[in-house]
Amino acid sequence: MEKIYEQTLLYDFYGELLTEHQRSIYEDAVYNDMSLGEIAEMRGISRQGVHDMLKRCDKILQDYEAKLHLVERFAGAKEKLSEIVELTRLGQSGQEMDDAGLMRRMERIRKLAEELWQEL
Amino acid sequence: MEKIYEQTLLYDFYGELLTEHQRSIYEDAVYNDMSLGEIAEMRGISRQGVHDMLKRCDKILQDYEAKLHLVERFAGAKEKLSEIVELTRLGQSGQEMDDAGLMRRMERIRKLAEELWQEL
Repeated sequence: MEKIYEQTLLYDFYGELLTEHQRSIYEDAVYNDMSLGEIAEMRGISRQGVHDMLKRCDKILQDYEAKLHLVERFAGAKEKLSEIVELTRLGQSGQEMDDAGLMRRMERIRKLAEELWQEL
Repeated sequence: MEKIYEQTLLYDFYGELLTEHQRSIYEDAVYNDMSLGEIAEMRGISRQGVHDMLKRCDKILQDYEAKLHLVERFAGAKEKLSEIVELTRLGQSGQEMDDAGLMRRMERIRKLAEELWQEL
């Protein structure tokens, strides 16, 4: 997984467990795409200080994921949801679908939804 | 929400954030349905000690929920999943469903699945 994407997912789930100060710096780096130098200057702290803080935040967020596995759990759920949405797209290519085809789709949707129910 | 059910949900999400000792006692009380007296005797600690520990665990779990809202998030998701599963149940009552009816169901399923995608 690309680092910035992984950071975004982790932050989405566990960001509230950081302090306000940590969140603020982390958001500048990850969401506002500011450089270490820019953050350091704006905050009046050293570049190294910003670097260490971000490392520490990454570690905290990863430790929560190692225990709670929410990113992993939700990523699997989203894959199944995508498949359900795909299955509801009918006749996009213009062809009509026969009843048997529809029934098979409905069956597959039910199976996916039931699996999701178990996993969530 | 009934207390034991709420405790189970909270524990399911955040239990890993308790210490092993806390988890063990919490499981005896909530999952194994042991009384304070039974737990106290088995552990060689006071009944009051067990009581305080359980209170403390509840508080820790509730504090995580107040920050991360996972129980709330998943409960909403499960409601939508139930509706999707219901919508895939065809012809239970023996009647055939016409194409228009099937299409409406598919539309509704897609809408629910897309909302879920946003929420997760």
